[in-house]
Amino acid sequence: MPYQTDTFNNYVDQHRQRFLDEFRQFVEQPSISANGHGIREMAALVTQRFQALGATVTLYETPGSPIVYAELGPQDAARTLLVYNHYDVQPEDPLEGWNTPPFKMVIEDGVIYGRGTSDDKGELLSRMQAVEVWQQTQGALPVRIKWVVEGEEETSSANLTDWVKANAGMLKADGVLWEGGGYDEVGRPTFGLGGKGIAYFGLRCQGPALDLHSAFAPMVTNPAWRLVWALSTLKDANDAITLDGYMDHVRPLTDEEWARIDAIPMDFEAKRENWGLPAWINGISDHDARRRLFSSPTITICGFHSGYGGEKSKTVLPAEASVKLDFRLVDGLTPDLAHNLLRAHLDRRGFTDITIISYGGEHFAASPPGSLPELAAIAASQDTWDKTPIMFPWYAGSGPIYPLTTLLGNPVVFAGATWHPDSRPHSPNENILVKDYFDSMRFTAAFLARFGAAEA
Amino acid sequence: MPYQTDTFNNYVDQHRQRFLDEFRQFVEQPSISANGHGIREMAALVTQRFQALGATVTLYETPGSPIVYAELGPQDAARTLLVYNHYDVQPEDPLEGWNTPPFKMVIEDGVIYGRGTSDDKGELLSRMQAVEVWQQTQGALPVRIKWVVEGEEETSSANLTDWVKANAGMLKADGVLWEGGGYDEVGRPTFGLGGKGIAYFGLRCQGPALDLHSAFAPMVTNPAWRLVWALSTLKDANDAITLDGYMDHVRPLTDEEWARIDAIPMDFEAKRENWGLPAWINGISDHDARRRLFSSPTITICGFHSGYGGEKSKTVLPAEASVKLDFRLVDGLTPDLAHNLLRAHLDRRGFTDITIISYGGEHFAASPPGSLPELAAIAASQDTWDKTPIMFPWYAGSGPIYPLTTLLGNPVVFAGATWHPDSRPHSPNENILVKDYFDSMRFTAAFLARFGAAEA
Repeated sequence: MPYQTDTFNNYVDQHRQRFLDEFRQFVEQPSISANGHGIREMAALVTQRFQALGATVTLYETPGSPIVYAELGPQDAARTLLVYNHYDVQPEDPLEGWNTPPFKMVIEDGVIYGRGTSDDKGELLSRMQAVEVWQQTQGALPVRIKWVVEGEEETSSANLTDWVKANAGMLKADGVLWEGGGYDEVGRPTFGLGGKGIAYFGLRCQGPALDLHSAFAPMVTNPAWRLVWALSTLKDANDAITLDGYMDHVRPLTDEEWARIDAIPMDFEAKRENWGLPAWINGISDHDARRRLFSSPTITICGFHSGYGGEKSKTVLPAEASVKLDFRLVDGLTPDLAHNLLRAHLDRRGFTDITIISYGGEHFAASPPGSLPELAAIAASQDTWDKTPIMFPWYAGSGPIYPLTTLLGNPVVFAGATWHPDSRPHSPNENILVKDYFDSMRFTAAFLARFGAAEA
Repeated sequence: MPYQTDTFNNYVDQHRQRFLDEFRQFVEQPSISANGHGIREMAALVTQRFQALGATVTLYETPGSPIVYAELGPQDAARTLLVYNHYDVQPEDPLEGWNTPPFKMVIEDGVIYGRGTSDDKGELLSRMQAVEVWQQTQGALPVRIKWVVEGEEETSSANLTDWVKANAGMLKADGVLWEGGGYDEVGRPTFGLGGKGIAYFGLRCQGPALDLHSAFAPMVTNPAWRLVWALSTLKDANDAITLDGYMDHVRPLTDEEWARIDAIPMDFEAKRENWGLPAWINGISDHDARRRLFSSPTITICGFHSGYGGEKSKTVLPAEASVKLDFRLVDGLTPDLAHNLLRAHLDRRGFTDITIISYGGEHFAASPPGSLPELAAIAASQDTWDKTPIMFPWYAGSGPIYPLTTLLGNPVVFAGATWHPDSRPHSPNENILVKDYFDSMRFTAAFLARFGAAEA
């Protein structure tokens, strides 16, 4: 074992209640980047917690949420680790889906409920607390840590890339420990080396100046119909993307990449049951679902809102309609490409009346196998659980991975240790297990030790 | 003049403030059939107002809102008039569109604002007050009146037809005075002889049991996309209905009907400007807009709601999606036909996962020209304003006309005198003019006199 586990574990046990109390404070402080609610307060909490670790903390202002940047550990350490987390959370809606108040931390039967418990406050704080435990029980940190905690991850990190470019020299490192990762359905540590990109757009169409009596429908353009017609040209009823020219840019996977995808032990049947689904899309097999999950770009309607949505009937022709669309990008696609092709596609079909609002985007990014952070994560997994982790070539999800990794030449591993398959990030009843929260501290310690060691 | 206008007008002037106070009471009592809010209280108010006129009033319970039925006037009158109004109103949303609170009656610069002022409380109460004035200034009413005031007109009158069938004998009359009608852009009285039918459906599609992280979109069916794809098969991007077999049932209009439609003096340009529209749908001419308005069946998306609709972005794959669809029916189409063809059309394309909820329907209904109520309305218009009214063969709007007219063999005229072209029924800032409110009383008196007279 690369660190003294007895003293480490004893300290964790002694401070268990305080650690959970600190977690409660993090969870019960809303920090919704979609509407700004509680962002400043949360950034201040994170700053204070870093200061308590003796870190040098700087709050970088951006046009959106501030970025909390901390440095800690010996300046002369052999290796420098960049850690990435975020302090913002998804909006709480739909509120009626929650069994407990979203911004209360409720512990029940070994499960910790609350918005942000899994994404990403549990990971963030358990890692910070692991640093405290290390310092109190092992002494100096085995690496220099550069820690980026941003506040716009849930809204496509609109301001992170510019900040990274302006501070590129400061952010160089020997490797990056990312957020995310966790456990699969049977408790195996499940890590990864990157993620899909994303482009998020709003589509808006304006109809009459006011909601009209629907009797006038024969002669008045209906903005909801306009969006339906436009959307129906982007993907066909078999879910195949028909956006002009888009699929031509997708880089085909190599045999080696398919092999790594096929080798991932994932229980697709359990996922389907968890989600109450009778079948996957178009009735595809688990094998094809897996291949689509990692290899397919998507165009997802995240929201469609227009006109009357209350009880029974209201006979209106809506004044406006709006859609939220999320494009997940595989290698070869970029946010700018998605935007430009979408605009051209709509214009070509006469949908010049549909406005596109860009809510930010992120590039596809994945590190090649065999990097230092990957090797450290594999070793730390064996140290902590005596298990070899599953290693995803990249995740189906997205994050602002590209600027902090590919752009700077920093290899990355996703090796969080708090998420389990029913953690419900972005959904009501988001949760993590108490056990995983404390395991995350032990894993973090092992990772720091392995990353810092010459032979990692 | 068929009644003593001096005494009539003097009484109106003396009681002007009380009449407006009564109107305020009606407008400020919400009565939203879509959610039931205030329905009982409003039915009680209408009942009390009828009782004050000496009417025999019966509250008929239905599975929905109660029907207020009043009889008044001499039992031995030569003719019996059926009057139809409704006491329910549309929901107030979108609330942010209102300049004044929807359930406050605000009078400003000769305009009376508030939900229901035009549709249909102004018409209802000014007619009731006209009966009071007649009784106080002229003596016995010149006709026997059977007055139906229902409370579900805004939700497709789901229970009226059954009630009419159960009380068919009681409801026979020499003619029907309907709600609606009013004035055109230059103040000409504008009446009609019927209306389109309607069928109102909810479409629902269920996806995963919970809102999912949108990363899983490659393998999970998205209910919003399902509805988009299904809808896009019902109408093409040129607004042509493509619902299988549907258009085959539309009865072509006769030359005489086209001629009556073409003869209606309507200012389409003013309408377009009122509504802030650069052009009619597909850039059609005013002439074609008019022809479509009266002759075209419609499938209107009144609402589409699914997933996230807040600020910025939320990366979810929605658990469910729902749409509200309003079909306006021309002659030859019926609510049952629309429902059956829609279900078959969706099933044929594999959309068996889309549920159809029926929110009621009404048949197309129009009386032939030359009936007693039409002649009485034309004469009363000349009496009141010295103007020949414009007479629509039928309106583009709908109402529960069929059961009380065609089904019972009662000819009908729509001859309300409160609506003006910017009255905004179903929209924020619904309003009528103070002048029209009091003119409606004088018109009602003239209509009763003309309808009751042998030579009408």
